[in-house]
Amino acid sequence: MERLPLKSKVLNENQRIAEELRERYRNSGTLCLNLISSPGSGKTALLERTLASLDPSTRVAVLTGDLQTDNDARRLARFGFPVQQITTGGTCHLDGRMIEKHLAVWDLDEIDLLFVENVGNLVCPSSYDLGEASKIVLLSVTEGEDKPLKYPSIFFKSDLFVLTKIDLLPYVPFDADVAEANARRIHPEIEIVRASATAPGGMEAWLEWLRARTAAFKERAAVAGSVM
Amino acid sequence: MERLPLKSKVLNENQRIAEELRERYRNSGTLCLNLISSPGSGKTALLERTLASLDPSTRVAVLTGDLQTDNDARRLARFGFPVQQITTGGTCHLDGRMIEKHLAVWDLDEIDLLFVENVGNLVCPSSYDLGEASKIVLLSVTEGEDKPLKYPSIFFKSDLFVLTKIDLLPYVPFDADVAEANARRIHPEIEIVRASATAPGGMEAWLEWLRARTAAFKERAAVAGSVM
Repeated sequence: MERLPLKSKVLNENQRIAEELRERYRNSGTLCLNLISSPGSGKTALLERTLASLDPSTRVAVLTGDLQTDNDARRLARFGFPVQQITTGGTCHLDGRMIEKHLAVWDLDEIDLLFVENVGNLVCPSSYDLGEASKIVLLSVTEGEDKPLKYPSIFFKSDLFVLTKIDLLPYVPFDADVAEANARRIHPEIEIVRASATAPGGMEAWLEWLRARTAAFKERAAVAGSVM
Repeated sequence: MERLPLKSKVLNENQRIAEELRERYRNSGTLCLNLISSPGSGKTALLERTLASLDPSTRVAVLTGDLQTDNDARRLARFGFPVQQITTGGTCHLDGRMIEKHLAVWDLDEIDLLFVENVGNLVCPSSYDLGEASKIVLLSVTEGEDKPLKYPSIFFKSDLFVLTKIDLLPYVPFDADVAEANARRIHPEIEIVRASATAPGGMEAWLEWLRARTAAFKERAAVAGSVM
């Protein structure tokens, strides 16, 4: 079969661009987080509530991917921060080249935090490094506890697992502890937070993770700077 | 870019196998239905309830795809009908070759109705013809009304759209009429049924569609047979 060598070639080329992006993020002090989930797990809703909670002086930007429509960019632009839609046509994931192209119109030195909302797909985006500091996988409580076992790659590669829509737990046959134990069978060190974009206080654990991740990133950048 | 020619080659090879499968289904009088949705939209639950409702003499079989685990095959095998798991490893869709390989252990002449439950993915499976008579797309009410616009290909190619988990409508900000109108913007002739695998009567519209589809298939096969 000729598929594997070509797939390797595409992934190698993507990896080269991803390393360049990672270097640029390091130089500009930009924390890039790559959000991945099935369609409809709540990536955009989580980002909406996150942007709404941030001080207007926060230097945050969002790239949001979809096959078609700019619905998500329009939803996210309402909060006043820079947002761009990446429309992939038929492509089932974002790749480094798409990120590079869209970053060309921004000055990364002006961005401390960059959210990349990937195409809704629990499979393909896990293969494409975008130079991000962390991948974050979202799974909603309506989706079934065994998803980490069925889609192990993305849970293995993510630093954080956000269990979303926990306000719906009373209405669905979903055991959050089992889902989290399944994620830890795939990736024992994965961090986990539970979130709801609609319930009071439902964003706290996620926002606390985000604050800690941002602080750790800044500290590491300062140490790296002082030894250079 | 060298990606497109190779992708075409892979798809052409798949198309060749799909046509062979279609011919075999025609000869054996097997109605093959290819179920496609995001992870967690309820494909397996719909099939569980469907199998539970069928007379034990029904000649039905199921092929169910996942990246990893045989959880779904074990769930579906409880109803006494032949079921096989297709584990794709990392591959994000089922292809004709996988179907062909798994059908080798069954006698298609003994199967009137074959359900293929695709890998949970709203993007890639839409590109791979499996020789099915109809593609069926599922979307749950927890996923957002704009999904048909964001993932148009699968809605364009499906004969039926099953809106699932309608028992959750009171708890989610989802307008079923808007979702259905969006699907019809992409594919004006698409048939639509609403379903719930948990609410009383929630399977009726789907089972009625299935009965009508099966009857139409048999009638067409009889007419084709009489003119040969």
